[in-house]
Amino acid sequence: MKVPKAIQSVIESFEKLPGVGPKTAQRLTFYLLHVPQHELDRFAESVQNLKKKTVLCSVCFSVAESDPCMYCSDAQRDQGLICVVEQPLDVLALEKSGRFYGVYHVLHGKIDPLNSIGPEEIYINQLFKRIKENHNGSNIKEIILATNPTMEGEATAMYIARHMKNNHPEITITRIGRGLPIGADLEYADSVTLQRALEGRSSY
Amino acid sequence: MKVPKAIQSVIESFEKLPGVGPKTAQRLTFYLLHVPQHELDRFAESVQNLKKKTVLCSVCFSVAESDPCMYCSDAQRDQGLICVVEQPLDVLALEKSGRFYGVYHVLHGKIDPLNSIGPEEIYINQLFKRIKENHNGSNIKEIILATNPTMEGEATAMYIARHMKNNHPEITITRIGRGLPIGADLEYADSVTLQRALEGRSSY
Repeated sequence: MKVPKAIQSVIESFEKLPGVGPKTAQRLTFYLLHVPQHELDRFAESVQNLKKKTVLCSVCFSVAESDPCMYCSDAQRDQGLICVVEQPLDVLALEKSGRFYGVYHVLHGKIDPLNSIGPEEIYINQLFKRIKENHNGSNIKEIILATNPTMEGEATAMYIARHMKNNHPEITITRIGRGLPIGADLEYADSVTLQRALEGRSSY
Repeated sequence: MKVPKAIQSVIESFEKLPGVGPKTAQRLTFYLLHVPQHELDRFAESVQNLKKKTVLCSVCFSVAESDPCMYCSDAQRDQGLICVVEQPLDVLALEKSGRFYGVYHVLHGKIDPLNSIGPEEIYINQLFKRIKENHNGSNIKEIILATNPTMEGEATAMYIARHMKNNHPEITITRIGRGLPIGADLEYADSVTLQRALEGRSSY
C-alpha cells in the first residue's frame, strides 16, 4: 500500500504505543492532519523533552523534575511514612486520592519469577538501604505496602514485609486495604476479593 | 495534583487526541518514559513534519506527498473511473482492498444539515468542475459513490447522483454495494442492512 512517507512515519510511531493498533494509529494520524501546526509543534516538543526534563529521584525513584523530588524535599510531608508502590503512575493515583501525606518509594516493577524478575531487578534493595540509613538518623514509623493486589504484587509485599520483620521489627508494616471497590456489586465480586473483604472488615 | 511539567505537557497532548481519555493519556506518557530518546526524537520529528511534508492533491484532494498525487499522476490507473469518498482514510481502506484501479475524489466531509454542513463546505463543487473539465477532453466513464452508508453519506451520494444525471447523463453513476459484511451473522444484522442486502442480491 502506498502511503505518503510523512504519514506512514506517524502511523508507525503511534502503533508502537501500548494498546494502539493499526486502525487507531491511522485514525490518530489523520486526525492530526486537521490540527494547527503550532499544536503539532507543541506535541513534538513535549515528547522530545519528556525524558530530558525529568529525572528519577535518587531517594524514592519516582519520576520528578528535580532530585530529590518534590515529595522527598517537602518538609510538610511526613518523611517517616513511606508508601511502597510498583510504578510511577501509582504515585499519581495516590496523590489524586488526596489522603496520603507521607512519601513514596517506587519499585519500578514487582517480583515476578515467571518473567525472571527477582528482587535485584527492581529498586527493592534501595528501599532497604534507604530505611537502614534513615532509620539510624531519623525515625521511620511506618511502611505502607501498596503494591498491586495481584499474585506478583502480593509476593513483592510479602518479601519486603519478611525482610523488615527480620531487620527492623520496630517499624510498623502495613498492607493497603483490599476488599470491594466503591460502587461494586457484591453479587459480581470474585471469591478471592470477597475473602479479602471479609478478612479486612472493620468495626462499624 | 503535582505532576512534573514535562510529563503533564505530554499527558495534555495525548488527551487532545480523539478517543484518548485522561487515564490512557497517563498510561501512554509513562510508557514513553521507558522508550529510548532517539525513538522519542523520531516520534517528535514525524509529528512535526506530518503537515509540512504533505499536501492536498489539487485534482482529487487526497493527502499526498506531491501534487498531483501518486494516483492522479499514475498512467497505469484508469483515470476515467473516479471513486468518491468522504475522508482521506477511506482512500487507504480502498487501496488495501487491492481491487480498485481507478482514481479518487476526497470530499473531506459529507452533507450534514444538522451540523450546517452544506455542499459548499466540502469539495463537491471541485468534483463537478473536475468532471466537467475532464469530460470535455478525456473520457470519464464511471463515478463510484463510496460515501459511508449512513444518513449523511447517502444524502451526499444522492446529491451527487442527481447533479450528474442532470448534467452528464452519459456518465455511469454507481453506489458502492451495501449488504451483509463478510463474516457477519444474518441473525444479528439490523433490518436496514437486510433490506439493502436483499435489494443488492446478485445472481448465483
